[in-house]
Amino acid sequence: MGKEGKPNFQLKTPKGTRDWAGTDVVLREQIFSTITEVFKRHGGVTIDTPVFELREVLAGKYGEDSKLIYDLADQGGEICSLRYDLTVPFARYLAQNRDIQSIKRYHIAKVYRRDQPAMTKGRMREFYQCDFDIAGVYDPMLPDAEVLRIVKEVFEGLPGWAGKYTIKINHRKILDGIFEICGVPQDKIRMISSAVDKLDKSPWEEVRREMVEDKGLDSTVADKIGEYVKLKGGREIVTRLLEMPEVAGNASAKQGLEEMEILCKYLDIYGVLPALSIDMSLARGLDYYTGVIYEVVTEGSAPAVSKADAAKKGKKEKKSTDPDEDRSNDPTLGVGSVAAGGRYDGLVGMFSGKPIPCVGISFGVDRIFSITKARMDASQIIRPNEVDVFVMALGGGKDFTGLLAERMEVAKTLWDAGIKTEFLWKQKPKLQQQFKAAENGGVPWAVILGQDELEQGQVKVKQMGLPDGHPEKEGVMVQKSELVQELRKRFKGAEEQVLVDRTVASA
Amino acid sequence: MGKEGKPNFQLKTPKGTRDWAGTDVVLREQIFSTITEVFKRHGGVTIDTPVFELREVLAGKYGEDSKLIYDLADQGGEICSLRYDLTVPFARYLAQNRDIQSIKRYHIAKVYRRDQPAMTKGRMREFYQCDFDIAGVYDPMLPDAEVLRIVKEVFEGLPGWAGKYTIKINHRKILDGIFEICGVPQDKIRMISSAVDKLDKSPWEEVRREMVEDKGLDSTVADKIGEYVKLKGGREIVTRLLEMPEVAGNASAKQGLEEMEILCKYLDIYGVLPALSIDMSLARGLDYYTGVIYEVVTEGSAPAVSKADAAKKGKKEKKSTDPDEDRSNDPTLGVGSVAAGGRYDGLVGMFSGKPIPCVGISFGVDRIFSITKARMDASQIIRPNEVDVFVMALGGGKDFTGLLAERMEVAKTLWDAGIKTEFLWKQKPKLQQQFKAAENGGVPWAVILGQDELEQGQVKVKQMGLPDGHPEKEGVMVQKSELVQELRKRFKGAEEQVLVDRTVASA
Repeated sequence: MGKEGKPNFQLKTPKGTRDWAGTDVVLREQIFSTITEVFKRHGGVTIDTPVFELREVLAGKYGEDSKLIYDLADQGGEICSLRYDLTVPFARYLAQNRDIQSIKRYHIAKVYRRDQPAMTKGRMREFYQCDFDIAGVYDPMLPDAEVLRIVKEVFEGLPGWAGKYTIKINHRKILDGIFEICGVPQDKIRMISSAVDKLDKSPWEEVRREMVEDKGLDSTVADKIGEYVKLKGGREIVTRLLEMPEVAGNASAKQGLEEMEILCKYLDIYGVLPALSIDMSLARGLDYYTGVIYEVVTEGSAPAVSKADAAKKGKKEKKSTDPDEDRSNDPTLGVGSVAAGGRYDGLVGMFSGKPIPCVGISFGVDRIFSITKARMDASQIIRPNEVDVFVMALGGGKDFTGLLAERMEVAKTLWDAGIKTEFLWKQKPKLQQQFKAAENGGVPWAVILGQDELEQGQVKVKQMGLPDGHPEKEGVMVQKSELVQELRKRFKGAEEQVLVDRTVASA
Repeated sequence: MGKEGKPNFQLKTPKGTRDWAGTDVVLREQIFSTITEVFKRHGGVTIDTPVFELREVLAGKYGEDSKLIYDLADQGGEICSLRYDLTVPFARYLAQNRDIQSIKRYHIAKVYRRDQPAMTKGRMREFYQCDFDIAGVYDPMLPDAEVLRIVKEVFEGLPGWAGKYTIKINHRKILDGIFEICGVPQDKIRMISSAVDKLDKSPWEEVRREMVEDKGLDSTVADKIGEYVKLKGGREIVTRLLEMPEVAGNASAKQGLEEMEILCKYLDIYGVLPALSIDMSLARGLDYYTGVIYEVVTEGSAPAVSKADAAKKGKKEKKSTDPDEDRSNDPTLGVGSVAAGGRYDGLVGMFSGKPIPCVGISFGVDRIFSITKARMDASQIIRPNEVDVFVMALGGGKDFTGLLAERMEVAKTLWDAGIKTEFLWKQKPKLQQQFKAAENGGVPWAVILGQDELEQGQVKVKQMGLPDGHPEKEGVMVQKSELVQELRKRFKGAEEQVLVDRTVASA
């Protein structure tokens, strides 16, 4: 402790973490609730795994990003690490519970990456993921189509997102086929795939330079790749690729394209096609994907990167192994994407030798939160709490008792009825103080007690914030014994009025 | 990796942690939801703090239990530890945000203690706490009374708990006064307080032995303490103590008793008194309490401890500093309590020098979960998911197409209407398979598609599990274009039928 009882360290949360409070946490809870509702609509069940896993479980799953894993100190006993994502713990769970052959599971929880934080971009060391994954053997592309339907429902359920998101999609087998056709050596495919994945942030020239100079790819091979990865568009891209003889002649590409054809047929039924962009430059960094891969981007979520910046970054990355350096190109997350996922048929088998095919999606809620908040207009007021009624005492002067017992009794009656209620924790509060407290909390209703009125078994109900001249501006007297019914009636009336107002406003 | 792709380590969660899945996680979510609703009813707002804090924040807050704190490995940068409870992070938050002078905050999150796990008793290394705390300067005992009202609403809202819980309550100032009166030296008060706290698990003889032999207390002083800590009962205990001249003459005890008198008056209004047991043997281990302290116990939650067991444990504890030994007497949690809390007016000031008085409660959800589960009878079936409708294809044989596109289209229509819907991800599923899938998920409604019926614009709606002879046992045909409305009408009808059935059953 320092002097004056102050501690001699800076009072803060650890680097890359933050407290969530006030209307921020209310809005984030609303986003969780929208997402959870969609997950449940599709039969999702939740699983809650521990925040840390045995270190061996995470080992060998994240490639060079393993250096970002948070380890627990060795205090004797098992060696553990904080989870890096929700996918590997899910695969561990499936491998461990051999009786489970299929499941639709969702998981909303925090994950941990000892990355260089960039708060303004919404990149933190502790952040939430909302994952939905389907495990099990089914007829081709049916679970994949449903995951993308979930993406549509989530973004169309969030305020300000309808029509403002794009699902970029590709297929690992198509990509692998293209690399084969272009003549990429087998042992360089993953490396070249990672380079291609940077095309959403870096210009082709920079990616080509990386392939040729850093990864040692033949420059004619790189140029061939350049022709393919430019392809981008709707369902017709699949047809165009299948019409190219060298592509149709490659087994891997052909299988991937046939799966994409089926998927597009299903997405047409589900109304998802308009949001889809088949994009040959999408590669996704993680090794474990084996089929479709996708990322959701939105207006303004992809930062513009100048060529100079990109070149600078490219150089930096080449040399750096320091996890505290800027990693704007984090391939596991993709700056600019608000959700990402794909099919991974081999991960569960890595743990148990029992392969269970899986496909899933992870929503980056912290980023979705920032964008949603920016899109909401001032009229969409978020209340800090949900209190419906503030119970007040009317009176003042020497004889004023404060009516504390009476306020408590009314509050008890309302709580018993499940009505969210507060009153001021003061023996003799001023009326103005009570109104101020109600207004600060945005509480819509006041129940006002007066000595004389109570003696006649009556209390006053007043809707807050009514305009001058409104017939009930000053409130109405109701029987105390009928207070709960009277309030419920008024809550309902006010809700209907809001609907009417909205209809009028939008007409 | 071992042979056959199996890893060469045991596939499990770390010691003292578990996965939550299936109906367990559904029931736990219901408990969270009941608790959250009560918290919001009283104006609570939530705050989400990071899972780890700077180690200095936790230092010096938990006495000898500090050895149970999980540290993160030093990987360069700040030194952090996993949170041990939600109270210290809350105090850190208040101290850090100097503009916040008052708040009602709730927080439902996991905490971490490197304790010896005892799964059967519900003692884990990772477990949930549900905390509600009120910070701010208010008139005496009003926030304290509201916290205890919250306790009542939570337990009466949980299935099987009404009338089956007791709130044990005491006051630090009364206890300190009693120790002074008995002649406990000032520097031994906290130590003797901890010994007294064990009376819920150990017999008086054992606690007396600890005080005299281990803590070096004069045996006549111990015997005097024995007389006071036997006192237990309702509101009359306060009156009895105030009638004892030596108690009324002690400033600390008098102040505590006067506060208890006010509290009892308020709890009478709130209907909480019947559940209250004023208990002079309740001491609570944590140093930071300064006023009322309470613990909630329930039938069967307090394990019977034989004298021999207690003596054995007493001896063990005396010697042990090993965190991996059995610590059934963990004073921070109290085996047998399902919720605990109290007033702590000094904790925030430890961080900032700005004292903010606080009072709060922490619900031990994992233990509440185990007891609730044991109390629920078999008729209270918990469904693993919430799906309302299973869309099926009727047919078979060579010409059967499987009606996949048609099933997808109906599912899309229902999802668009917000109805939770599944279908089997197979091109040509057998009807029996589809019924089995619906039954496994406990799905209450089937929509059955047949080629001929579809051509007439019709589909069949069938409520699952109707008894033989019921007029709608075989389902009813409805217009496909009116499916959503027809289903909504039937959902509502079925809900009302459940209410009628319950009324008949309980009459």
